[in-house]
Amino acid sequence: MNHKIRLGILGGGGDSLIGGVHRIASNMFDRYQIVGGCFNPNPTENNEFAAHIGIPLNRVYDNFDLLIEEEMKLPEAERMEVISVLTPNFLHFPMAKKLLEHGFNVICEKPLTTTSAEALELEKMQAEKQVVFAVTYTYTGYPMVRQMKQMIAAGAIGNVQKVDLQYYQGWINPIIHDTHQRKTVWRLDPDKGGMSCCVGDIGTHAFDMVEYVTNLRVKQLLADLNYRYPDNQMDVDGTILVRFSDYCKGVLRVSQIATAEENNFTVQIYGETGGFKWSQENPNYLTYLQEGKPMQVLKPGYDFLSDFAKEATKLPPGHPEGMYDAMGNIYNGVAKAIRGEKFTHGSFPDLEEGVRGMHFIEKVLESHKNGNVWVNL
Amino acid sequence: MNHKIRLGILGGGGDSLIGGVHRIASNMFDRYQIVGGCFNPNPTENNEFAAHIGIPLNRVYDNFDLLIEEEMKLPEAERMEVISVLTPNFLHFPMAKKLLEHGFNVICEKPLTTTSAEALELEKMQAEKQVVFAVTYTYTGYPMVRQMKQMIAAGAIGNVQKVDLQYYQGWINPIIHDTHQRKTVWRLDPDKGGMSCCVGDIGTHAFDMVEYVTNLRVKQLLADLNYRYPDNQMDVDGTILVRFSDYCKGVLRVSQIATAEENNFTVQIYGETGGFKWSQENPNYLTYLQEGKPMQVLKPGYDFLSDFAKEATKLPPGHPEGMYDAMGNIYNGVAKAIRGEKFTHGSFPDLEEGVRGMHFIEKVLESHKNGNVWVNL
Amino acid sequence: MNHKIRLGILGGGGDSLIGGVHRIASNMFDRYQIVGGCFNPNPTENNEFAAHIGIPLNRVYDNFDLLIEEEMKLPEAERMEVISVLTPNFLHFPMAKKLLEHGFNVICEKPLTTTSAEALELEKMQAEKQVVFAVTYTYTGYPMVRQMKQMIAAGAIGNVQKVDLQYYQGWINPIIHDTHQRKTVWRLDPDKGGMSCCVGDIGTHAFDMVEYVTNLRVKQLLADLNYRYPDNQMDVDGTILVRFSDYCKGVLRVSQIATAEENNFTVQIYGETGGFKWSQENPNYLTYLQEGKPMQVLKPGYDFLSDFAKEATKLPPGHPEGMYDAMGNIYNGVAKAIRGEKFTHGSFPDLEEGVRGMHFIEKVLESHKNGNVWVNL
Amino acid sequence: MNHKIRLGILGGGGDSLIGGVHRIASNMFDRYQIVGGCFNPNPTENNEFAAHIGIPLNRVYDNFDLLIEEEMKLPEAERMEVISVLTPNFLHFPMAKKLLEHGFNVICEKPLTTTSAEALELEKMQAEKQVVFAVTYTYTGYPMVRQMKQMIAAGAIGNVQKVDLQYYQGWINPIIHDTHQRKTVWRLDPDKGGMSCCVGDIGTHAFDMVEYVTNLRVKQLLADLNYRYPDNQMDVDGTILVRFSDYCKGVLRVSQIATAEENNFTVQIYGETGGFKWSQENPNYLTYLQEGKPMQVLKPGYDFLSDFAKEATKLPPGHPEGMYDAMGNIYNGVAKAIRGEKFTHGSFPDLEEGVRGMHFIEKVLESHKNGNVWVNL
Repeated sequence: MNHKIRLGILGGGGDSLIGGVHRIASNMFDRYQIVGGCFNPNPTENNEFAAHIGIPLNRVYDNFDLLIEEEMKLPEAERMEVISVLTPNFLHFPMAKKLLEHGFNVICEKPLTTTSAEALELEKMQAEKQVVFAVTYTYTGYPMVRQMKQMIAAGAIGNVQKVDLQYYQGWINPIIHDTHQRKTVWRLDPDKGGMSCCVGDIGTHAFDMVEYVTNLRVKQLLADLNYRYPDNQMDVDGTILVRFSDYCKGVLRVSQIATAEENNFTVQIYGETGGFKWSQENPNYLTYLQEGKPMQVLKPGYDFLSDFAKEATKLPPGHPEGMYDAMGNIYNGVAKAIRGEKFTHGSFPDLEEGVRGMHFIEKVLESHKNGNVWVNL
Repeated sequence: MNHKIRLGILGGGGDSLIGGVHRIASNMFDRYQIVGGCFNPNPTENNEFAAHIGIPLNRVYDNFDLLIEEEMKLPEAERMEVISVLTPNFLHFPMAKKLLEHGFNVICEKPLTTTSAEALELEKMQAEKQVVFAVTYTYTGYPMVRQMKQMIAAGAIGNVQKVDLQYYQGWINPIIHDTHQRKTVWRLDPDKGGMSCCVGDIGTHAFDMVEYVTNLRVKQLLADLNYRYPDNQMDVDGTILVRFSDYCKGVLRVSQIATAEENNFTVQIYGETGGFKWSQENPNYLTYLQEGKPMQVLKPGYDFLSDFAKEATKLPPGHPEGMYDAMGNIYNGVAKAIRGEKFTHGSFPDLEEGVRGMHFIEKVLESHKNGNVWVNL
Repeated sequence: MNHKIRLGILGGGGDSLIGGVHRIASNMFDRYQIVGGCFNPNPTENNEFAAHIGIPLNRVYDNFDLLIEEEMKLPEAERMEVISVLTPNFLHFPMAKKLLEHGFNVICEKPLTTTSAEALELEKMQAEKQVVFAVTYTYTGYPMVRQMKQMIAAGAIGNVQKVDLQYYQGWINPIIHDTHQRKTVWRLDPDKGGMSCCVGDIGTHAFDMVEYVTNLRVKQLLADLNYRYPDNQMDVDGTILVRFSDYCKGVLRVSQIATAEENNFTVQIYGETGGFKWSQENPNYLTYLQEGKPMQVLKPGYDFLSDFAKEATKLPPGHPEGMYDAMGNIYNGVAKAIRGEKFTHGSFPDLEEGVRGMHFIEKVLESHKNGNVWVNL
Repeated sequence: MNHKIRLGILGGGGDSLIGGVHRIASNMFDRYQIVGGCFNPNPTENNEFAAHIGIPLNRVYDNFDLLIEEEMKLPEAERMEVISVLTPNFLHFPMAKKLLEHGFNVICEKPLTTTSAEALELEKMQAEKQVVFAVTYTYTGYPMVRQMKQMIAAGAIGNVQKVDLQYYQGWINPIIHDTHQRKTVWRLDPDKGGMSCCVGDIGTHAFDMVEYVTNLRVKQLLADLNYRYPDNQMDVDGTILVRFSDYCKGVLRVSQIATAEENNFTVQIYGETGGFKWSQENPNYLTYLQEGKPMQVLKPGYDFLSDFAKEATKLPPGHPEGMYDAMGNIYNGVAKAIRGEKFTHGSFPDLEEGVRGMHFIEKVLESHKNGNVWVNL
């Protein structure tokens, strides 16, 4: 039984969506066993929830500090090996920091922290502790995203010269027009949501994705955000011009007031000889454009795909997998890293990606506040 | 902890795809705990596999009979409550029969049995034993299929007058042209594959689906099968005319030599005032046609959907779910039935559907062998 | 100016849709000049219409016989070279016959005649007269249909083993349920609509298309038609099993009660190494499946297409062409034939296709009336 | 015969694509007769071409000045009523100016002129002369674009709060990387192509479209262009932030190095209660999003559409029309205006749109050259 990795979970109790995502994902490759955690700050609810999902109550802890204390008393062979941090954003940093101090591997929801300074501190600690630290940019787990990353690296579209990513949602639309309703949404409250709503929540996904698939780094950006109403303090929409070099440019477009859009995250990458198009809502289709040749549509499960993409699919072609499966692939990558198995770079988003994401948010806000000017990243 | 249903599994070991599907699905709603089973006829491999997936070895049994014997010794409160039968087709009947005899709830892969007589016997036993018996026609678990079923029942398209279902795969194509390769595929061997290849494997899905969504029963059918080569004994393709009444007709089209098709299962249902279209490869889109009105596309996760469809989605709109999630919904339906909770009819495919499926296969073959004539069902 | 072909038109006056289609199509390649015709049986309306569309009235004739008489008096260099027959179906035969007798080239709307005997008579006459005779199965004019035909001929999918064509409309649905409304529709009146409604109108398109793109001939068929109500005498729906050989089979599916469908004509052809899929409502996309390779989507306007497909597109890739353009390509093919220029076989549907279409209708009805039995074609 | 409008054409000879588009379009509603023109600066080629397309040679003129001179000698009832200007861009202004001076109605290709000063001069003259002047932003002729315009005006999505238009092509990609090939392309030569390549050619379409469908005016813009190589003087790509008000913002994205894209022009408009999405490559589908309701897809030919959209479709639903048909609708609008018939505003793009387009180009270049700053429009 020691094949399975002992997983602890912080947060994600009750009817938390993200809690379910992590539990289901961790189970997908038979690599993890949830041995305990602290799911809810209320001890009664915490225990009830643990019982509900079938976790032995002896390692369900009333609070995070107690979890650390008690787990550290256990012999290493029984101790939790990795801990998933699903708590509210402002708790990510203190929890991750303490986990690193005690040598735990960490899986942390995004955004990693509330400032880039915190993120850099975690990065530094992790380098010292040599543990695995994953930041769950879930969409990098889709097999066709992984295929795109590998094909671009292999030259399938030549040097990248233009990128265009869109992440459009509409869920804030009805809320934003009603000042009373607005107050009930933590993401629109600077005290709870941190620096940014839209850019922090979904802009970071777009930013991470473009660097993930192109293997390039954004050098400069210029952002124009939309707050919709003068008395609203949190961005709900924005367009961000990005430059990788003088002649490789692009745009990240994000919105939460693109009314009635669901989770419309799309990626378009163009190089000197071809291009790729991918959409999160139909994740099993990767459009591959080549100059002067028929358009190709790549789908999961085929021998002609890269090993990295093939490993990320469990079913034969035509049997659709979805977002849980994408997160499952990230957990599988973390499992390989923890167990010292060989894994492809990109199998899980790492701390560098988490740090870049925090920088990105800060720089976008800086650009916007200074009058939509170019800033270096 | 007694919230969770104690699940045992028969078969599905090694790198069995269907084994993974059932394990992941059973975990999705925090309703099951796999407590044991017999995954592999080879005892060593059986134990190794159980260890690999983290099942306590004390309830991993060397064979099915031993499982029954030992489990029956346990007090009812510890005994497996439901057992999933994932073994080769010919074992479904004897195992399901013995499970019923001992009062276990059963989840059985399709096709239910190898003859309709066997299927009827199971149906009779289940009626006596009053246990839950599910047959895993997975595709009925998709939320948009459930929405279609409910809307048709509610009159959204008026009386049904035409149905057209397609299930096209291409995987047998390269095999069928090579007599040596053909022998290596159990589905093409009458001794192992039973009466039928294509009709039995995927035709039954189309047949079950059309009765599931329309809430109607096929009265007559006329089938033309294709064996592709005179020396091939198993059908690999077929078109089946169906009649629900004198003036409500349709067609089921199935193929495993629709070269390079993946798992292209589509449903088209037309009534007196509108129609529905759905495709398994893009399961989160349900096209709703209404005479003289704009086409609608319904997607999961919305308040305007039926409760039945809403319960079948775990994520907000735009976060794609896939085939595991469909099976998860079936497991969730079984859980409700076992625990005596309220559930919508259609929450899991039942024995009646399994029995109808076996009749269907026999009647299709009868029609074809008698020269493509109408037979009653 | 003698570059342009002198075109006469029979029928198509008033707000006839098909009249507009032929006029616009004939103009598309600068190959035709409409010099006269008889557009309407009412002389006043005839002249008014001609004036409306800008035809010099001196060659606008009160009736068909007068047109023949007067045109034959003109020197051959001024006489109409080709005449388009757009009159009601029952007039196709007598008009086409007389046109052939006088040596005119003919473009005739489909269905060619009302019986196959008539069609055969036309075929015989045309062989004697050596004139050009086109039957306007419009959909063969789409560039991607032509590309499919050529690629299949060139072996792109190997030997064809399965075909599946669908032509679903819904326009008869509201009518069919109302016995009063039914009487107002000529297609539902056996006296005016001839033998068949649905099979004659759209079934012939599906039949022509499958022989056009596969370059094969249907040998046998078995049909099941739907009349929806016992007191309705004309078919409104049907499924037709077809066989090209013992092991190459398929199905044609046609309906005019597929409620709220528009003009949903789709083609699926599978061979030993690949397949093609095409849909009339999105005619500029040809899906090309190859075993074990990525799906390709071919679009018009590319160098890699066959010359036949390239000639059928006037605009660069991405500028959509539609149904007028398809008909324009047929007119262009006829122009080449009339002028003795080189043209690819298939550039326009010929009398053989018209004759086959009439046979098809008769055999479908025969099969259905004899109890859905196989008949030879 | 005086029903038809006497049309003259300048340019568009030889194998000019745009020449064919205008000829076919002018023919579509039986409203125009091409009576003459000057198609080619070379008199021999001019006459040969005119003969080829069947224009009587007596009104085919060797040059533009001669055309004016001779046509003005004709009585008004015979004179050309409208003249289409399809010549190279730098000739638009002098020709249009002289045409206005002589009281002709004008249909002019875009871009209207080479500077906004010229455009304003034309606008002033037209106001004096009270003639019809159309600028052929072809895409405003699609029926679903017209439907979108009318629904937005009618409040279907509430106040617009976000716009996003994309016009991506790839055709300059192979050229841009080869300095020799670059010189052969007039659009990349500032002497011939004017101020701008990409923004002038396709950016103006996006700009016109966003103002056309929203009925709003862009107030400010900030542009970042891409020239790809330091020694290339003409823009080949750009992203343009636009503001309609402080809280209604958006982005126009244009590229001709989006490798292997065809003519991928898409429109996304979001308001307070819903949104619209439309794509030029599939122009017959208009996606209508409404908060909390199923997505709708509107297609041409239905009674529920606005009259404006209905008039723009000639065929029943499901028979695809394309780009020629869009241009045909614009010609039809011009015909109504010339004949003094009632027509909906927006039936053809007018001089105001042409003027705005020229301002747009200049302001985009100004913003880019000044370091990507906001400029008023």
